[in-house]
Amino acid sequence: MQISDRQLDLVNRQIERLRKSDNFYGRRLKEAGVTGVSSAEEFCRLPFSEKADLRAAYPLGLMAVPEDEIVRIHSSSGTTGTPVIIPYTQKDVDDWATQFARCLEMAGVTRQDRVQITVGYGLWTAGVGFQAGVERLGAMAVPMGPGNTEKQLKFMCDMETTVLCATSSYALLLAEEVEKRGMQDQIHLRRGVIGSERWGQKMRSRIEGLLGIELYDIYGLTEVYGPGTGISCRCGCGIHTWDDFNYLEIVDPKTGEPVPDGEWGEVVYTTLVKEGAPLIRFRTHDISRIIPGPCPCGDPHPRIDQIQGRSDDMMKIKGVNVFPRQIEEVLQRFPQLSSEYQIRISHLDGRDTMRIYVETDGTQNFLELGDEVAHEVKSRIGFTPIVKVVEMGLLPRSEKKTRRVYDERYE
Amino acid sequence: MQISDRQLDLVNRQIERLRKSDNFYGRRLKEAGVTGVSSAEEFCRLPFSEKADLRAAYPLGLMAVPEDEIVRIHSSSGTTGTPVIIPYTQKDVDDWATQFARCLEMAGVTRQDRVQITVGYGLWTAGVGFQAGVERLGAMAVPMGPGNTEKQLKFMCDMETTVLCATSSYALLLAEEVEKRGMQDQIHLRRGVIGSERWGQKMRSRIEGLLGIELYDIYGLTEVYGPGTGISCRCGCGIHTWDDFNYLEIVDPKTGEPVPDGEWGEVVYTTLVKEGAPLIRFRTHDISRIIPGPCPCGDPHPRIDQIQGRSDDMMKIKGVNVFPRQIEEVLQRFPQLSSEYQIRISHLDGRDTMRIYVETDGTQNFLELGDEVAHEVKSRIGFTPIVKVVEMGLLPRSEKKTRRVYDERYE
Ligand SMILES: [Zn+2]
Ligand SMILES: [Zn+2]
Repeated sequence: MQISDRQLDLVNRQIERLRKSDNFYGRRLKEAGVTGVSSAEEFCRLPFSEKADLRAAYPLGLMAVPEDEIVRIHSSSGTTGTPVIIPYTQKDVDDWATQFARCLEMAGVTRQDRVQITVGYGLWTAGVGFQAGVERLGAMAVPMGPGNTEKQLKFMCDMETTVLCATSSYALLLAEEVEKRGMQDQIHLRRGVIGSERWGQKMRSRIEGLLGIELYDIYGLTEVYGPGTGISCRCGCGIHTWDDFNYLEIVDPKTGEPVPDGEWGEVVYTTLVKEGAPLIRFRTHDISRIIPGPCPCGDPHPRIDQIQGRSDDMMKIKGVNVFPRQIEEVLQRFPQLSSEYQIRISHLDGRDTMRIYVETDGTQNFLELGDEVAHEVKSRIGFTPIVKVVEMGLLPRSEKKTRRVYDERYE
Repeated sequence: MQISDRQLDLVNRQIERLRKSDNFYGRRLKEAGVTGVSSAEEFCRLPFSEKADLRAAYPLGLMAVPEDEIVRIHSSSGTTGTPVIIPYTQKDVDDWATQFARCLEMAGVTRQDRVQITVGYGLWTAGVGFQAGVERLGAMAVPMGPGNTEKQLKFMCDMETTVLCATSSYALLLAEEVEKRGMQDQIHLRRGVIGSERWGQKMRSRIEGLLGIELYDIYGLTEVYGPGTGISCRCGCGIHTWDDFNYLEIVDPKTGEPVPDGEWGEVVYTTLVKEGAPLIRFRTHDISRIIPGPCPCGDPHPRIDQIQGRSDDMMKIKGVNVFPRQIEEVLQRFPQLSSEYQIRISHLDGRDTMRIYVETDGTQNFLELGDEVAHEVKSRIGFTPIVKVVEMGLLPRSEKKTRRVYDERYE
């Protein structure tokens, strides 16, 4: 979706602000002699920025305003290296709350709702983002934080919470716990707002079924405010994004060229009004596409499709490009299987092998079901994996992100 | 300190609001036929409320406004029973931030400071209270949350944080870690704001010495906003409290009668402008006193003394009333001892015994030092304890509250 004149105007003001600062982008723009962009074509020639650039700016090299205007930092986890630190002004904090409240409104949350927040606080953007959105909307935040399932269930019942905010893995864990304890009649949940993970239709249906609720996908990155820059609507056909705060483009992950609306590629973010740490053409490595045309829900904000994985998740197995998402979609066609699975890739005797673990209940013939699944996967990706069917509940559930792919060739 | 006319006026407005609600206080006031109080004497005849009353109102029996005005709840930990749930309106959240920012200002924090918050978020009031205060003041919040000492030290150095917010135990743990690693030259801390625990002069001096910082005591309760309703000033002679938000009186814990200014007793809180869950004459069980006269710092807000313990902490040993604080004050006279100690009370062969564990370094004669300490404690409390001197570092340090008294007679 081509950048609009209004957005271009905001980008130019942002470039002006950045050129006054000595931060990473300011220096880069000055070095490149960029003083502004006069057209959509010119915008597409602005250099990309990468997570590695942001990391190299550690600790405060992204700060684009004088320090006394900064009220807060957030940080990505940094488990794989130096963390990225994002400074926020008061306006950034307010703008984020505005976007988040808009997301909750789209999910049907009202001032009458009680919203149980089960994600983490602190440096992490999830908890405080949800809380600010709930309070801005005027609903009631029940700020549990992560973990402590026993207490979560107690508050869910006693506080009669109506909205659950969670990762998909933790929502599943809670849903299965509610079922196991026969607590369905004691809960009052009506909606779930699920963030920060890829998840499939199968898992969604299982959570929705067990808890009797509607689920919404919230989208965002620590680098761009946090969650809350977009959300799926009641039509369930894509994620509306707030184009007055951020411009999203889809580019070919290999060439960096914009792809036509409707085609898959990598999501690239440009902030439009951010002060503390503006971003220009930041590559997310998330795979999605612009959904062309108006949404049946009537909301005019542009839509991207559900995130299909990371451009980095692409695996080359037996010389074939495979996305975990492709496997997931095949597995979802089998109603006998649970929503959990694990993919393990190894290299033995000079050959790549792919094992897929799936779960089913005791009434199934494990061997036959495994063969069926292997056959379907082959028809999708071109080679036959080893499929191992195991007892329901055997695969690990986690309170945070569940790791589903283990590439043992590189471990 | 007698309630002022201005405060009385606010109490009357609060009574009016409460009588319109069907919450715990509203019903109690209506049952007692109280429509207002016309004098300080009449105020002192209003019934007290206790933690048990608040607990009995679980989950939302303290809510004094229509639910759609509530934006958030907080909760006490409830490890010892049903939690207390406190609902907040947007005005309550704002008023709390105002009080907290005033605390930070009194501690000398400015917009130029970087404030590392190492306390918990979520249902607990500490983290979000500190963060709102820092942001309201316009300083930079570095919201670490609790634990993960490795990461705390990394951010302390890399972010060059200038203010540390912590419990006293965790501040000590960080200070000792900084010393152990010889990191004193890498840190930029100037001040510490310490909340939610009793702690002695010895521990304060050790933290101040190791980190080269000034420390301030912040005071508050989950039931009354959270931390931030008062703080010590640079004179270190008492805690200034914000009498435009809360009225504090000191009463005899046995009789409930107000005690004269300067005398020790139990702190009792009455909120003046709280909407979500106002409190009238709430007994904190914290022991303190009003410090009469103006503070040398020039700030006109009334002062209470450092909290001397809980009225419930009083132990009857060999028929004598003993406060842990009395022991602590004796121990602080020995420069050879660390700030850590443990008191263990047991009942053997029909007699109470009190063992006190203290720490010192290897250059001391443990037996002689123990005898000296025992002698001093006897002169304070009237009987001789068993004093065991152990190697420096042997007693447990905790990231949360360090438990110092173990009454094994009741375990
Ligand atoms: Zn829509
Ligand atoms: Zn003072």
